[in-house]
Amino acid sequence: MGSTYGKIFKIATFGESHGVGIGVVIEGCPAGVNFDSDFIQSELTRRKPGQSRITTQRKEADEFEVLSGVFEGKTTGTPIAMVIRNEDQRSKDYSHIAAQFRPSHADYTYQVKYGVRDYRGGGRSSARETAARVAAGALAKLMLAELGVSIQAYVSQVGTMKLEKSYQELDLSETENNAVRCPDPTMAQQMFDYIDGIRKQGDSIGGVVNCVVKGTPAGWGEPVFDKLHAELGKAMLSINAVKGFEYGSGFDGVLLPGSQHNDAFYTDETGNVHTRTNHSGGIQGGISNGEDIYFRTAFKPVATIMQDQESVDQFGNVAIVQGKGRHDPCVVPRAVPIVEAMTALVLADFYLRNRSAKL
Amino acid sequence: MGSTYGKIFKIATFGESHGVGIGVVIEGCPAGVNFDSDFIQSELTRRKPGQSRITTQRKEADEFEVLSGVFEGKTTGTPIAMVIRNEDQRSKDYSHIAAQFRPSHADYTYQVKYGVRDYRGGGRSSARETAARVAAGALAKLMLAELGVSIQAYVSQVGTMKLEKSYQELDLSETENNAVRCPDPTMAQQMFDYIDGIRKQGDSIGGVVNCVVKGTPAGWGEPVFDKLHAELGKAMLSINAVKGFEYGSGFDGVLLPGSQHNDAFYTDETGNVHTRTNHSGGIQGGISNGEDIYFRTAFKPVATIMQDQESVDQFGNVAIVQGKGRHDPCVVPRAVPIVEAMTALVLADFYLRNRSAKL
Amino acid sequence: MGSTYGKIFKIATFGESHGVGIGVVIEGCPAGVNFDSDFIQSELTRRKPGQSRITTQRKEADEFEVLSGVFEGKTTGTPIAMVIRNEDQRSKDYSHIAAQFRPSHADYTYQVKYGVRDYRGGGRSSARETAARVAAGALAKLMLAELGVSIQAYVSQVGTMKLEKSYQELDLSETENNAVRCPDPTMAQQMFDYIDGIRKQGDSIGGVVNCVVKGTPAGWGEPVFDKLHAELGKAMLSINAVKGFEYGSGFDGVLLPGSQHNDAFYTDETGNVHTRTNHSGGIQGGISNGEDIYFRTAFKPVATIMQDQESVDQFGNVAIVQGKGRHDPCVVPRAVPIVEAMTALVLADFYLRNRSAKL
Amino acid sequence: MGSTYGKIFKIATFGESHGVGIGVVIEGCPAGVNFDSDFIQSELTRRKPGQSRITTQRKEADEFEVLSGVFEGKTTGTPIAMVIRNEDQRSKDYSHIAAQFRPSHADYTYQVKYGVRDYRGGGRSSARETAARVAAGALAKLMLAELGVSIQAYVSQVGTMKLEKSYQELDLSETENNAVRCPDPTMAQQMFDYIDGIRKQGDSIGGVVNCVVKGTPAGWGEPVFDKLHAELGKAMLSINAVKGFEYGSGFDGVLLPGSQHNDAFYTDETGNVHTRTNHSGGIQGGISNGEDIYFRTAFKPVATIMQDQESVDQFGNVAIVQGKGRHDPCVVPRAVPIVEAMTALVLADFYLRNRSAKL
Repeated sequence: MGSTYGKIFKIATFGESHGVGIGVVIEGCPAGVNFDSDFIQSELTRRKPGQSRITTQRKEADEFEVLSGVFEGKTTGTPIAMVIRNEDQRSKDYSHIAAQFRPSHADYTYQVKYGVRDYRGGGRSSARETAARVAAGALAKLMLAELGVSIQAYVSQVGTMKLEKSYQELDLSETENNAVRCPDPTMAQQMFDYIDGIRKQGDSIGGVVNCVVKGTPAGWGEPVFDKLHAELGKAMLSINAVKGFEYGSGFDGVLLPGSQHNDAFYTDETGNVHTRTNHSGGIQGGISNGEDIYFRTAFKPVATIMQDQESVDQFGNVAIVQGKGRHDPCVVPRAVPIVEAMTALVLADFYLRNRSAKL
Repeated sequence: MGSTYGKIFKIATFGESHGVGIGVVIEGCPAGVNFDSDFIQSELTRRKPGQSRITTQRKEADEFEVLSGVFEGKTTGTPIAMVIRNEDQRSKDYSHIAAQFRPSHADYTYQVKYGVRDYRGGGRSSARETAARVAAGALAKLMLAELGVSIQAYVSQVGTMKLEKSYQELDLSETENNAVRCPDPTMAQQMFDYIDGIRKQGDSIGGVVNCVVKGTPAGWGEPVFDKLHAELGKAMLSINAVKGFEYGSGFDGVLLPGSQHNDAFYTDETGNVHTRTNHSGGIQGGISNGEDIYFRTAFKPVATIMQDQESVDQFGNVAIVQGKGRHDPCVVPRAVPIVEAMTALVLADFYLRNRSAKL
Repeated sequence: MGSTYGKIFKIATFGESHGVGIGVVIEGCPAGVNFDSDFIQSELTRRKPGQSRITTQRKEADEFEVLSGVFEGKTTGTPIAMVIRNEDQRSKDYSHIAAQFRPSHADYTYQVKYGVRDYRGGGRSSARETAARVAAGALAKLMLAELGVSIQAYVSQVGTMKLEKSYQELDLSETENNAVRCPDPTMAQQMFDYIDGIRKQGDSIGGVVNCVVKGTPAGWGEPVFDKLHAELGKAMLSINAVKGFEYGSGFDGVLLPGSQHNDAFYTDETGNVHTRTNHSGGIQGGISNGEDIYFRTAFKPVATIMQDQESVDQFGNVAIVQGKGRHDPCVVPRAVPIVEAMTALVLADFYLRNRSAKL
Repeated sequence: MGSTYGKIFKIATFGESHGVGIGVVIEGCPAGVNFDSDFIQSELTRRKPGQSRITTQRKEADEFEVLSGVFEGKTTGTPIAMVIRNEDQRSKDYSHIAAQFRPSHADYTYQVKYGVRDYRGGGRSSARETAARVAAGALAKLMLAELGVSIQAYVSQVGTMKLEKSYQELDLSETENNAVRCPDPTMAQQMFDYIDGIRKQGDSIGGVVNCVVKGTPAGWGEPVFDKLHAELGKAMLSINAVKGFEYGSGFDGVLLPGSQHNDAFYTDETGNVHTRTNHSGGIQGGISNGEDIYFRTAFKPVATIMQDQESVDQFGNVAIVQGKGRHDPCVVPRAVPIVEAMTALVLADFYLRNRSAKL
């Protein structure tokens, strides 16, 4: 009951880590959007495993097939189904954990909730499910691009290593030039080495992904519950391993008095209203105000590590979960396109919802 | 298009700050819940303005009337409508800002989105709307109480003053004994004096509200988009002035390696599965695991201050927004029952949704 | 869980026959619609009881109060709440049936479903609930009128008395000139006398309401499940006492071969595409084609009659349900504005949904 | 925006007649349902074309593949995706109608609504889409069977040939023994010959499908908008070519006075409450009462005929639509499993929704 997202631009994802495949049905995408298959594939490639030695060595081409909703290169307004078949299933790797509850995974909670679970690679709870989001998000990005909206995420922190510069001080076009997806090349190299060290220890580490959206017109977002930042927060928190979300001034906004935190309005030379500062993060009253939208998403260390861990099995007996197989020592580099995809899905939906604001 | 919340236990709120009144329709509350009017009123009273000199002096009794859905003291399974009439409207206070955009308020974004707005007291964007949430949340709390679930929020930070103790080290029953709603009496007094100082300067300050949920059984939450913490995050971020949300280890979870962050499972003497630590915050894979659920919500300083501010009006002209009227120098004490109410609404919905998990 | 209707122009109704009142919250009405209170009141007056001796003598002024969402005579894009208080409650009339299940009423099914019920006047299952629909539908009509769409329903059959003329052969402006709401004055008088005879026998009789929509542009309706006629059908069938729905050629369409049933397209002198016949009832593939939309809705005789009837009580004992109180001998005259209201709600929603069909 | 159905047991269908394939994602099916692939395939086979000379000669094996949500023969509570690939596409058959609007098809309305359309075989508007419904409905049937609910539909009318017997007078187990799916063998043969005659003329004819549901417990259905019969009506009307729906006494219920139409309650020897007659069609106040549910659905003659027809093309020019290709002279035999499937989907959803009726 929770595998759909969106009110108008709406997606339904499906699939398990080691089943036949994963995929998504997108309903509510307007007719007439250019369906650029190469772009969608390139987004999936940004997310796929095995990109460098600091990501999992699982091998998946992550090639998608379109089943419906596209005709002569354009969306037709009917549902668009995309499927990505699983290749590197290696189910045997998981037989030893069939009855075990891996610490800080979803094994235990799925078992209690459903009474049954596909234990192979985490089944539905695997981060593999996010490939379907990236495919759908890529289409949302294509639609948003036609509206002048661009989304750029990047890694700003790995463990204790934190980029202190704001996004304005960075050259975000550098992001894709390194395996960590940190736009500061020096920091990127340090992060890479740090993650590689973690990997060698068979351990894992978390991080923070920042995201900046430019070009959103004022008016997107729906008060009072579906505030733009509330949906962005939900969308980010729905990504595996996410523990926190903040936008604009965020948790640090607590520290400032209102007289410093308030963003003064002014009219620029072209007659457009802007704010002098942007503690609001581009959103006021839950509605975009035309300034840059920016937010930060915190990822915990992934639960799969190459070390033995104490746990229990389905019968309540003590069990030692052994560290074998493949793992991502740090998930944030691959999380960058996922953050962007979810952001695109949120914005695409609000763009369409906003069409009904006025008569 | 965003004034409803929930899938089964579903609320629709309505009303503006200075209109006739505000209210809520609750649909999907099961039949047979004890409708304790006194409790609902007491929750509204916790939220209402004018409780001490550090909250706004606006006078509202915030008495509610039930229009439907209750018969002989029990819910009947039909929609429950509750209305709270506005008393202290003082519309004249707002005439001077009819055409002005107050900095960091929703005036500008509502104007662009809808082309029209009820400028009196912020209209729909006023935090007054949260009274309807508290009424609905009180009913959700009553239902949850019958299931053994309790929710306790408290103020953990105001500006730079931060309570360093974890919730386990605090006596949460102290929370309601002071105007700040901080369970540490010493810190509470310091915070009170600090806020009172801010008030005297005509300024405002933000803060953090922590929330702890005890007694949630394992199994609540719906993967993959409607993860329990994702809905909690959305619910918190939908409250006025909220800038950030984190649960369990939160942003600090980034700092730990997986080997320390993972929560080892064990079986207790009664045969129940528990975790030795709780970095997961009681939620794994988006589903409750039976441990305490805890999270933190950051509130910015409220935008209304008693100082003159630079801005523009609807015509793009420079305007000085004057600081007059009444304001909350710090919103977090009154936010405590709102955080609890939204938490209750999230949990009530997931309780019902989980009824369909198994055949 | 079923008291909301619509995806974008969305209503939530509440209230019971003998509680405090009934009402509706409309969410998703665009900002800028003229809120003509007099028109809304006049629609409620068309539905209210006591209009003539062939309708129930229950006395209700059915005056509504707006609580929110309207400012300076226009909708603001925020939720609009309207409440109608119950006046003529006479709860004592119903004490004798508190434990009885009235034949063909909802007493038994509510009792089984919810385990509790407000037995006074049928509680939530009373047709009184439709007043809330009429209020909301009146606002939808106001919006549609600005788009050139008009809706006219009328009584075409009462018991065995059936108007054989098509709507094109009738002067629909006559409909409101008689108590039956049949546009043929001669037939109207015959129907009136017939119903009055039924009334004197303490019995009831059913009828058929036809509805015609003019001015709908091509493009409204959403394949494949939310076809325009499927939603119209659901909307009509959701009205108390409705047993059947057909549109265009309806059940008689079964009799014709495709070569006669198909509606040939042609281009008129202004270049617009039309069909030469309209067996399609203005809807093809679930989407309006610009021709008149027309459909028929069948109402059974109302279950309340002034005769004693065999039944059982809550404990399974035999009980005689006595015929006393007030009743509508024939519901269709008062159903006319309800059919129009539900039609307006369906169309208003599809108008807004269609705004997202193309990029 | 209309390709999903259901609130809890929820389906999203996709696919076009001549694209890669069609399919469905089922979300909200509880964990633990036996996933009987053979049964699902047999239901698809009942619907597939080419079963006899009175159905279209299009060749489709209609074999389905499960992509997710099933593990070791049971549903897991996660989304179930099923895909049916198109085989007999013959796109060239349709090139001559690329720019034409076929009379009483959805060509014109799709073109206006979306500005683009997949003209091959009707694209999304093709009845081929219903195969996805049958696959999903088969799973719903499997779940309902575990609850003791059975659904049986049959053909009761073709053109003017009408079975006058009620369902109680028929042996419904005969239904699948003839190509028409009429349970009266004599009438079935007459209908077959009649349809075959229509086929030879290159024409088409409509019909009526009756449906009977046994074993539904009292309590399913959600007042006031989502009445059980309202959802059944919508579900039926959403099937291609449907023009009318009636349940219980239906349109004929108009003719009876309330004193005859009302269904008297009695308690049987086992203490269960029943009604002596069943004009209510097993539904009172929108909620099942435990009696048999029965209803009738009218299908128009299919629009595709093997005769030349006057029409226009996309540019408004006169065009002659030529009758070539393949067609169903009468759709009702193949509609029987579709009616059953949609009924199953409605009931499965209400079963789950009803789990939240009481605390």
